[in-house]
Amino acid sequence: MTETARRFVLASRPVGEPKTTDLQLEEFAVPQPGTGEVLLRTLFLSLDPYMRGRMSDAKSYAAPVPIGGVMEGGTVSEVIASNNPKFAVGDIVLGRTGWQTHSLSDGASLRKVDPSLVPISTALGVLGMPGMTAYAGLLEVGKPKAGETLVVAAASGAVGAMVGQIARIKGLRVVGIAGGADKCRYVKNELGFDDCIDHRAPDLPGRLATACPNGIDIYFENVAGPVLDAVLPLLNTFARIPICGTIAHYNDTAPPAGPDKLPSVWRMILSKRLTVRGLLVTDFATMHDDFQRDVSGWLKDGRIKYREDIVAGFENAPRALIGLLRGENFGKLLVRVAERST
Amino acid sequence: MTETARRFVLASRPVGEPKTTDLQLEEFAVPQPGTGEVLLRTLFLSLDPYMRGRMSDAKSYAAPVPIGGVMEGGTVSEVIASNNPKFAVGDIVLGRTGWQTHSLSDGASLRKVDPSLVPISTALGVLGMPGMTAYAGLLEVGKPKAGETLVVAAASGAVGAMVGQIARIKGLRVVGIAGGADKCRYVKNELGFDDCIDHRAPDLPGRLATACPNGIDIYFENVAGPVLDAVLPLLNTFARIPICGTIAHYNDTAPPAGPDKLPSVWRMILSKRLTVRGLLVTDFATMHDDFQRDVSGWLKDGRIKYREDIVAGFENAPRALIGLLRGENFGKLLVRVAERST
Repeated sequence: MTETARRFVLASRPVGEPKTTDLQLEEFAVPQPGTGEVLLRTLFLSLDPYMRGRMSDAKSYAAPVPIGGVMEGGTVSEVIASNNPKFAVGDIVLGRTGWQTHSLSDGASLRKVDPSLVPISTALGVLGMPGMTAYAGLLEVGKPKAGETLVVAAASGAVGAMVGQIARIKGLRVVGIAGGADKCRYVKNELGFDDCIDHRAPDLPGRLATACPNGIDIYFENVAGPVLDAVLPLLNTFARIPICGTIAHYNDTAPPAGPDKLPSVWRMILSKRLTVRGLLVTDFATMHDDFQRDVSGWLKDGRIKYREDIVAGFENAPRALIGLLRGENFGKLLVRVAERST
Repeated sequence: MTETARRFVLASRPVGEPKTTDLQLEEFAVPQPGTGEVLLRTLFLSLDPYMRGRMSDAKSYAAPVPIGGVMEGGTVSEVIASNNPKFAVGDIVLGRTGWQTHSLSDGASLRKVDPSLVPISTALGVLGMPGMTAYAGLLEVGKPKAGETLVVAAASGAVGAMVGQIARIKGLRVVGIAGGADKCRYVKNELGFDDCIDHRAPDLPGRLATACPNGIDIYFENVAGPVLDAVLPLLNTFARIPICGTIAHYNDTAPPAGPDKLPSVWRMILSKRLTVRGLLVTDFATMHDDFQRDVSGWLKDGRIKYREDIVAGFENAPRALIGLLRGENFGKLLVRVAERST
């Protein structure tokens, strides 16, 4: 086999916004599967906001990628050689094989994807980690009740779009926040949100208040920053705030300047009896079957729609990640690394 | 009846720490009960941190006391005249009759206290609102599990002392924080906390870390400020923070100077999957019978101890409230307004 494999390793820890030079493209020989192993060719690499955290050595829930280590990431791959009786050449599998064109696996952490049921890329989006984050965070932490009002930012993104659509199915008034008129139109017209507000236009607080005449009962937090500032005064008594991300701060190099908002927010949590709770999708493994059943059904019925933003070419992954952190993607961001050979 | 009644009305909204002149002592004629009414003589007035909030017109869960209005407060009173068949002269009742020596009531919001069972002042403390706040906040929001570590500040105060003692009964390691060596000795030796740290001594963060070798699973928040700063790095994954008060900030005239800690705390809530939830005792009315049964039993068994800091003389109430906000009280703060006549 004369094919050459490629991978991105972490060359340096970013200070502020990552630079393309923080990630270095390396070539390596396509490895040979050992006993019990499969050789995978990556078809799709998922790009997600959490990756910024893995590039940093700040203390977090997961260990950082070491300098010189292959960047972590979820992938959909094709089995191109197999010494494992559970996998055949041509099988499509979901895994966490990272930013590389080829990888070996003993199969234990792979899940087969049936290409006859749904497009294989959905295993990284609407039927994958982002979809499950939305499903579990909304239902388990948000505890939605029909008639309530939900607000979610990054509303055209992988998580936000699902949060809003599931909340609509559950009978809530759903207001999205997105960057730019195109995204807002999509969120309202295609995803069926009740309203969507462009955070780039002036007076976000005033327009959000107008869109939420009965206040806010669930704020699904994935951005923080100015959106959080606009949401806080509108929160109702007993509102819930599932926190699944704070992307507005991922490139911060130091805590923002004062004043310190923590005391006033702490006091508001008391006076409004808010519940603020962080969630990682991995904490909700027991909900996985319910998630697959519900979301597959809603997709089939046309009650859930999704949009993918597919970047061609493995070498473009670093620039695409930088764009994701700037909000430049429109839909679930994926890198198409290779075409299926079968 | 030639007796003269007295009351404190709110003369001006405090800026920062209240001044005694913010509350004005007025005399008024002892009123006569109308049909169905009782006339009450106040025996004990409870002083509690929430009163600072009622003096302010900042938006909160309860309306502020109007300028010229009688200050709100919980009391234990004696019925001295009755036109209500449910109450006899000499009955002892718990109510929210405010900072006044005499008041009228139709009885609807009064609860009888049996002086043969417990000291009547306990209806304002260990068996009253502060005790119930501790009980509900710890059990319903804190969700304590044996073997976990709990930290609570104001540990010799009405709420903190109860939180720690109930947590000890539930099998937790309990670390208190209090102001001064005397209070810390009391918290450890009398209340039986595993440890107690003097927040006035240097290096609170270092000493708290030493006292919590397995981290912190429940931080019962009643102070915020520097104690919260010391607690945050020690919180374990899935820790719970019931918020019942933020007394360190009640006299703030503006948000504290930066940096803004909110983004880093928000991100920590995510990465450690914390649950932060505000609570008001009035949200937990359905737990009242369980509370009375459990705490009465623990008092009888000697498993719960309490300490009262009783100020003599109604006229001293404003100065005592100012001291409470400074942490000068030692135990549940009460004003003895009158002696029982029966």
